[in-house]
Amino acid sequence: MSKSVLLSGSTIGILGGGQLGQMLSMAASRLGFKTHVFEPSANPPASNVSSIFTQAEYDDYKALEQFSSSVDVVTYEFENIPTGALDIIERQCEIFPSREALKISQDRLLEKEFINKLGFKTANFYEVSTQEDLTHAIDQVGTPSILKTRRFGYDGKGQLKLESASQAEDIWKESSAKDLILEGFVNFSREFSVIGSRSKDGQISCFDPGENVHKEGILRTTTVPANLTVQQKTEAVLITAKILESLNYVGVIGIEFFLEKNSLVINEFAPRVHNSGHWTQNGCTVDQFEQHIRAITGWKLGNAERHSDIIMENLIGDDIYKTNKLVADGSLALHLYGKADVNPGRKMGHFNRIKK
Amino acid sequence: MSKSVLLSGSTIGILGGGQLGQMLSMAASRLGFKTHVFEPSANPPASNVSSIFTQAEYDDYKALEQFSSSVDVVTYEFENIPTGALDIIERQCEIFPSREALKISQDRLLEKEFINKLGFKTANFYEVSTQEDLTHAIDQVGTPSILKTRRFGYDGKGQLKLESASQAEDIWKESSAKDLILEGFVNFSREFSVIGSRSKDGQISCFDPGENVHKEGILRTTTVPANLTVQQKTEAVLITAKILESLNYVGVIGIEFFLEKNSLVINEFAPRVHNSGHWTQNGCTVDQFEQHIRAITGWKLGNAERHSDIIMENLIGDDIYKTNKLVADGSLALHLYGKADVNPGRKMGHFNRIKK
Repeated sequence: MSKSVLLSGSTIGILGGGQLGQMLSMAASRLGFKTHVFEPSANPPASNVSSIFTQAEYDDYKALEQFSSSVDVVTYEFENIPTGALDIIERQCEIFPSREALKISQDRLLEKEFINKLGFKTANFYEVSTQEDLTHAIDQVGTPSILKTRRFGYDGKGQLKLESASQAEDIWKESSAKDLILEGFVNFSREFSVIGSRSKDGQISCFDPGENVHKEGILRTTTVPANLTVQQKTEAVLITAKILESLNYVGVIGIEFFLEKNSLVINEFAPRVHNSGHWTQNGCTVDQFEQHIRAITGWKLGNAERHSDIIMENLIGDDIYKTNKLVADGSLALHLYGKADVNPGRKMGHFNRIKK
Repeated sequence: MSKSVLLSGSTIGILGGGQLGQMLSMAASRLGFKTHVFEPSANPPASNVSSIFTQAEYDDYKALEQFSSSVDVVTYEFENIPTGALDIIERQCEIFPSREALKISQDRLLEKEFINKLGFKTANFYEVSTQEDLTHAIDQVGTPSILKTRRFGYDGKGQLKLESASQAEDIWKESSAKDLILEGFVNFSREFSVIGSRSKDGQISCFDPGENVHKEGILRTTTVPANLTVQQKTEAVLITAKILESLNYVGVIGIEFFLEKNSLVINEFAPRVHNSGHWTQNGCTVDQFEQHIRAITGWKLGNAERHSDIIMENLIGDDIYKTNKLVADGSLALHLYGKADVNPGRKMGHFNRIKK
């Protein structure tokens, strides 16, 4: 094997200890790898299934150095990792997916420019740094539109909807951040996503597109197969492959699409395993978590074939209190994250149901 | 929920840190439980996926006390746990499956007597403590037959085959243990097993029987569905249920059967998750590991329905060196235990292949 292929028994460093880190860690262990999870908060889900757990802040450079020296490769479960932390880590070991992919996906403006440059559609957008920009942006993009922070948004956070131009002044006052983007509203009929992956030697594999339903900005369900034409699925897969290749990408990527009339509009992508790919845990032999571990360790990718049709449903906040009922329905594949605090909008678990 | 139902977030103690402990621990984590693994050896597979790992001997009563006080229930991945250790643990918390099941399965003599008493067939057997016993046992049981230690045998260890009565003296000298049983040879056409489970409230569930192939006393493959008649499958499931009920059993049990002509002969049972049940990881929505965790925490059992036909193959000793080839065949579900030392006969991993 080449030097860039890690043997079973090597240690994978994971930045972030939430449920994605937890499921990555279990996939790694299933292939005989050890994991070292780095996370600022105490007792995160991933700490229960990692070989080593370091609780430290991302500006604790000493902890980051120790972390990097103890692992053979580093990956992450979320894209908003401070650049300084990555600089420290990169002195000692490789980070996958690459910093280029991370940099682009961290910034809605760069992300949309990158996608457009490849020839693919996004919502109309306009950069906004001042109130004058906003006025001008509304002229260009129209209403309804959404004012979003360029960075650090997730699950609908950092977004304000603009119904008409007259709201501009109020919206501007309401927004604390000044590093913004105004996005035109996409009048979509469906939302779906493709979980793609690319290995170190350029092998590309995509799971079947999943159809997503969001509520209050948070993913609620993913259904596979998605109600799309073969042509639409093919186009989505080709777009995914093109993005992966342009970035010389290694790992799993989650790309969110809108279907607007008959055309595909890319909403955003995440350089990591993705909530809308959880269905693969019970629908495929090799799931998105294992696929990611295979990619970043230089292994061949698994076959992304689907053996079962699946509906994935998230358990958000209070939903966790219906666990009893879900357990009693013995045909569900439950995935509970073991989070102690139940907050509105917090992802507490999910379940997959095989469709008959 | 009743007091005997553990909530997600509780801690499950697991005696034994091998691959069964590892996979139990991951199943527990998937349901939001924490785990504490107790194991004498350093860096066992389960230590990479447990919330807490204690490396200590089973006669380290202080360590056992600390272990018991930190967990909400205790289970185990192997049946040869010293009685003294169980006595210590039981002062502080419940052990599932029960000590009665453990006691019977630890001793081939008690096990066969128990099975016969329920009206089910075993190999003919005779207790052997002296050379005279052996002579008499050969008269009763005949040859070929197998002289086995009553306790602590696994994977064909502690067994000597007797081809004719004239070997009795040599065999007796060769056997270091004196707590033995002579078993008649079962001239079987097939070997299979049933992975059954029983919940605290008496719900019983069985996975489909799997057909097993052993080589040198070690399981090599399990194929599901087994090549059995519906009548034979039904009989095996009814026997499993009867054994579970007689023992007031809680947890997963693995029962090995021989098919001799048209009749079912019980070889032995293991009061734990079982190698021949690994196929459930990729053939069922709820696998044997989750089923066991559900049972011992007082949860309802999952549906044992099979969504795919599976061949499970063990990776024994040197087999692990063909990992590259197995990875390249992306359609296999690989499970590697991450064991550093490769020894002949050592279980290093397994894989499941979905049959088309």
